[in-house]
Amino acid sequence: MTSSPKNSGPQTNLDVDYVISYRFADSDKATAAAKFEKLCHSLSSAGLATEVRNGENHSLLLFVKVASEEHLYGEVYRSRVHDWIHGVRAAAPPKDTRTALESEPLSEAERLRIIYQLITNPEDEGGAGITPKEGEWKEVESIFALHDHSYNKDWIKQWSRVWYLKTEDLDEIRNRLGEKIAFYFAFTQSYFAFLVFPAIFGASAWLLLGNFSPLYAIVNGIWCIVFTEWWKHQESDLAVRWGVRNVSKIDVKRKDFEHEREIKDPVTGETIRIFSGTKRLQRQLLQLPFALGAAALLGTLIATCFGIEVFISEVYNGPFKTVLVFLPTGILTIVMPILTGLLTDFATRLTAFENYETHSAYEAALTRKIFIINFITSYLPIFLTAFVYVPFGSIIVPYLDVFSLTVKPFAENEKQLTSPKVGFAINPDRLKKQVIYFTVTAQVVNMAMEVIVPYLKRQGFMKYKEIQSKRAGNNGTLDVAANDPPEEHQFLKRVRNEATLSIYDVTSDLREMVVQFGYLSLFSVVWPVTAVSFLVNNWFELRADAIKICVEMQRPVPWRSDTIGPWLDSLEFLAWVGSMSTAALVFLFSDDEAGPHGTPYGIKVWGLLLAVFFSEHIFLTVRWGVRVAISKLESPGLQKERRERFMVRKQYFNESLGQLSKSPAMGESYTEISRQSLEDDARDASLSASSPESRFWSRQKGWQESAKAGTGLMEKYAAGNETKKSQ
Amino acid sequence: MTSSPKNSGPQTNLDVDYVISYRFADSDKATAAAKFEKLCHSLSSAGLATEVRNGENHSLLLFVKVASEEHLYGEVYRSRVHDWIHGVRAAAPPKDTRTALESEPLSEAERLRIIYQLITNPEDEGGAGITPKEGEWKEVESIFALHDHSYNKDWIKQWSRVWYLKTEDLDEIRNRLGEKIAFYFAFTQSYFAFLVFPAIFGASAWLLLGNFSPLYAIVNGIWCIVFTEWWKHQESDLAVRWGVRNVSKIDVKRKDFEHEREIKDPVTGETIRIFSGTKRLQRQLLQLPFALGAAALLGTLIATCFGIEVFISEVYNGPFKTVLVFLPTGILTIVMPILTGLLTDFATRLTAFENYETHSAYEAALTRKIFIINFITSYLPIFLTAFVYVPFGSIIVPYLDVFSLTVKPFAENEKQLTSPKVGFAINPDRLKKQVIYFTVTAQVVNMAMEVIVPYLKRQGFMKYKEIQSKRAGNNGTLDVAANDPPEEHQFLKRVRNEATLSIYDVTSDLREMVVQFGYLSLFSVVWPVTAVSFLVNNWFELRADAIKICVEMQRPVPWRSDTIGPWLDSLEFLAWVGSMSTAALVFLFSDDEAGPHGTPYGIKVWGLLLAVFFSEHIFLTVRWGVRVAISKLESPGLQKERRERFMVRKQYFNESLGQLSKSPAMGESYTEISRQSLEDDARDASLSASSPESRFWSRQKGWQESAKAGTGLMEKYAAGNETKKSQ
Repeated sequence: MTSSPKNSGPQTNLDVDYVISYRFADSDKATAAAKFEKLCHSLSSAGLATEVRNGENHSLLLFVKVASEEHLYGEVYRSRVHDWIHGVRAAAPPKDTRTALESEPLSEAERLRIIYQLITNPEDEGGAGITPKEGEWKEVESIFALHDHSYNKDWIKQWSRVWYLKTEDLDEIRNRLGEKIAFYFAFTQSYFAFLVFPAIFGASAWLLLGNFSPLYAIVNGIWCIVFTEWWKHQESDLAVRWGVRNVSKIDVKRKDFEHEREIKDPVTGETIRIFSGTKRLQRQLLQLPFALGAAALLGTLIATCFGIEVFISEVYNGPFKTVLVFLPTGILTIVMPILTGLLTDFATRLTAFENYETHSAYEAALTRKIFIINFITSYLPIFLTAFVYVPFGSIIVPYLDVFSLTVKPFAENEKQLTSPKVGFAINPDRLKKQVIYFTVTAQVVNMAMEVIVPYLKRQGFMKYKEIQSKRAGNNGTLDVAANDPPEEHQFLKRVRNEATLSIYDVTSDLREMVVQFGYLSLFSVVWPVTAVSFLVNNWFELRADAIKICVEMQRPVPWRSDTIGPWLDSLEFLAWVGSMSTAALVFLFSDDEAGPHGTPYGIKVWGLLLAVFFSEHIFLTVRWGVRVAISKLESPGLQKERRERFMVRKQYFNESLGQLSKSPAMGESYTEISRQSLEDDARDASLSASSPESRFWSRQKGWQESAKAGTGLMEKYAAGNETKKSQ
Repeated sequence: MTSSPKNSGPQTNLDVDYVISYRFADSDKATAAAKFEKLCHSLSSAGLATEVRNGENHSLLLFVKVASEEHLYGEVYRSRVHDWIHGVRAAAPPKDTRTALESEPLSEAERLRIIYQLITNPEDEGGAGITPKEGEWKEVESIFALHDHSYNKDWIKQWSRVWYLKTEDLDEIRNRLGEKIAFYFAFTQSYFAFLVFPAIFGASAWLLLGNFSPLYAIVNGIWCIVFTEWWKHQESDLAVRWGVRNVSKIDVKRKDFEHEREIKDPVTGETIRIFSGTKRLQRQLLQLPFALGAAALLGTLIATCFGIEVFISEVYNGPFKTVLVFLPTGILTIVMPILTGLLTDFATRLTAFENYETHSAYEAALTRKIFIINFITSYLPIFLTAFVYVPFGSIIVPYLDVFSLTVKPFAENEKQLTSPKVGFAINPDRLKKQVIYFTVTAQVVNMAMEVIVPYLKRQGFMKYKEIQSKRAGNNGTLDVAANDPPEEHQFLKRVRNEATLSIYDVTSDLREMVVQFGYLSLFSVVWPVTAVSFLVNNWFELRADAIKICVEMQRPVPWRSDTIGPWLDSLEFLAWVGSMSTAALVFLFSDDEAGPHGTPYGIKVWGLLLAVFFSEHIFLTVRWGVRVAISKLESPGLQKERRERFMVRKQYFNESLGQLSKSPAMGESYTEISRQSLEDDARDASLSASSPESRFWSRQKGWQESAKAGTGLMEKYAAGNETKKSQ
């Protein structure tokens, strides 16, 4: 298994499962040596073999592989049975370990996940207890598997040729990179496929109906519903297909979890650590001020820059106007990352404070908070334009005088700063331009950043390491490869390179897609061609992400997952808000594309509210309908699960069938028995005449006598009738 | 088991499981006799013993019991294994039939359900295929079990003494009457217990804050959410406690189901009958015109009567006013039952046309339609008063002149019919009076009707039967008991009485509770004491229903169920609509209890809409929060299920543990093995020096050598440093 063909050739990984990068630059010699010895010993205790080589910049590369395949199989079997006990698998693995592995071969992802857990799990759970950069293992810089370069090359080549990814392509990713990353690709692929419809419809609507078409708004809303509901269906289907349904419930425990007390699980008898739910709920309530604070902070920043921009571009008339126009963009570019950084940091602390037990709960909570930040930064500018600038522009703009202070130094006379109270007109193209900026320009810039920034970061990081090594006295970089055995030279060079790469975070890629979906659901009615841009963008996005994983990042640890998690809630939320924002946009702008021209007096507020109200409730009704319809769809995954569960039970049933057949069979053959026994009963009863029950039931023996007695009674009635008639 | 103490004494049921009432009045003699013979034979084939006695009014009473307990046990075991295969039970019954019955004794409800299925199931499924009043069995009037009178007496006596029902009381009902009825009592009991809070709070709010208090509205809304969410939790908990979770999925098939084609189930290999889902969906779409039609019909009727009432009581001034005031009530009392009857009939046909496969799906669909009718008849009058009469009264009332035609014959001069356009003022008490009527008077009347109407109906029915028998020529009623064996006299008299009782329908009782909940959620802000009335009413309601089941109705067949079904959706829907209607009521009436005094001009429509909008969204957010919080609660039922599932799997795990221990154990002891094997590997490798992999992994033997090599590399770095320094 370890020397499979894909690993051979010049690109061989030499059976290495994981590489541990151990940096000793910041520790004193004796401690570093003692810890390294402990590291080797711990790994060996967990059943792992080790080899050490020189790393770059005061680091060692410790190569790790499983010492014996037997041991690995045992671990795999344990993990599978554990899954089954906790309800992840419907069918139990065959009782024989070998058979189990043959009937369901080990995928690379499963192998790497189990070995990673062997390295990182605490010692009392049979692992080596190595926690990178944490606690006593702060010298352990990273633990990473090696890229399979020949496979990666094939992968990228293949994807660049096809238009559409099949489920088998996703299966392949799942087998290589684990379910969590496979779910990202599956989601993006589904989204990409679904985009074809709004792209075509949107382009036609744009040509035939123009912007702010109510018809487009309705179709787009329904599309959002169908897509989210269908993805939910697809997701659970894939989870079953990949055997990870419910896996989020048995998620890896967090090491930082602080328990209040320990109790015995009433079910399994295991000791479980408890943190009071009420206490956590109290801590979770802090999310409310956090959300308000984030909204206030980011909102103020965005609104201020927005105001300055409007002031300079539409009020101000002095010198340097062409340069000053970029002032707000400059402020945003500098201040926004700092603010979001601070808020993200705060969100992380808050989530840590909420003290979740499992990684997935922690991540879900963090994702929710990050979504709030994203929602504000991504959509607030457009909301401001559509619902503040356009309707209230004429009223607000005069107050923007306050910004004249900003440009005072440049003004030549007071007149240039006086706002033209009469004659000011809102810029009717502003809204559309902004939407186009966010849905086209920003997307392209973003994708470029995704490829370029990590590259620069990596270069910078390598530089930093070099400097640090130099400070340690000697230019070690020259020596590193000197003692390499010649046949390992190429291999070690590659490993040293991979050691410097960043760690891939699938969440940020997912976030990007969800934010993109938001533009579609919230604002695409402004510019219906939006989906076309997204369609093109996402074709490249999928490939760029694949390249990013292969080239820019360390090979990710193949974690499992059964869902895209809290992003699903975000999707639903965006679709919902979309039903309202779209209705409001159509109401405000559909008569006249420029909207209310800066004066709110022409707006019928009750009409606006009524439109939003109806749109939302129609949305909710349709969603309910779509949900019911989709739940009726047969899913191959669920069918598989049902089959497996049925098989387990059928087998049991067959085993106990022997017992059952001892009890009397039913049907015609039974009549004899029952009559026999009945007559016996009756005879017994008449002999002893014991109870009223036996006397009651012995008056008619067998069904023939009942039938006869009944006929008799009926005849008596008839006879009575005739008697009466004759009287 | 059959001769348990509760059946002994003068109230004994003589081991009778079911009584089949066979009426031959409408059939000719020969057919009746032949069919009766077939009936006895079919029952006997299904393993049932029979006895026949005279019934009242040209009917026979065929007593049925299971011929042998062995046969019954076999059936019970089959049913339990079937449940387990389809996922209703988490744990399989023990493989030995006897052990299975001992470990989980047969409850009376289970026994009666299984025997009922033996009687009614088609012959190819091992039953006798008797379908009362249907197809070839139209002479079979009813199949009913006998009341356990001594138990019933104890039950009523006990309940009349206690204030609160414990879970054990509900368990008892479940064991006697089956889960479906037990769920009704459990729901009503939970609802009753939850009512204590709004009763106290509502009474205080009424005293301190008056009507239309926003605080009361908020608290009431939250209470509605907590109650519905808590009931959902409680329901699934009870379903597990009673072992019926998922039972609705394996529900009894409908006999009237028409399949389009037959396919083999890909999972179980059983033949299943298919009706196209798309076709059903198309048919289901007819619900939309149905709902609109029902709304239009009932709405017109209610609005017309409402208009007439307003006209007569507030505009009309002529003679007979005191009498004419009752005209609209009269119209409603006569026309409403006819209309709802027609609509219910139509709903039933529509549901039948939708062609559901199972009883529960059919019932759910029917319930949804009936809920629409109920919603209109129960709440529309109040909606009309609050949102039409009060705000638009002054505008609409003049148009009510059209009704002057109705009263023209009574008018003495034209003046009496002229609407007082000036001086008309809406009746400010109307809304409150109406709410009080629906929440107090109607409830009391309703409960009285529940006890009195069935009694009258029964008397009437008996009379009708008597007349029919008389028409058949002979006064049979006199003869019926003449030939009874003296010791059976009392018993047969009782059975003949029970044969005339109606069949209990739990759905109508549930509907009553749900409609009541609707008044609380939709309108209680008008009169916050509402909950006090309901609290008192429901204490009696629970007892009255128990009495009704025991005295007025035949013993119900103990059907299973795992939920109160679609009523749950109705509850959620009512709570949701309540969040909107309450906000609107508070907005319109809280300034001045008389509201807008009939003129809409003072109403800020955008304010009203905004209030509704915010209230609804706060409602949805709170509901989401409550849902999350309640999902965190530990439930004893789910814990039980988890334990059972765990035990099944644990057992399996233990069985396969022998296999597992053959693979190497982990931890310290393993090091030796791994080192040994590693060294062997290494030696092999150096001997053959075959692959680059083996050469790579054989450079360091065991963890000690890796550690030493690592220390060596680190020292080399340090040495390099010193060399450099000394240079």
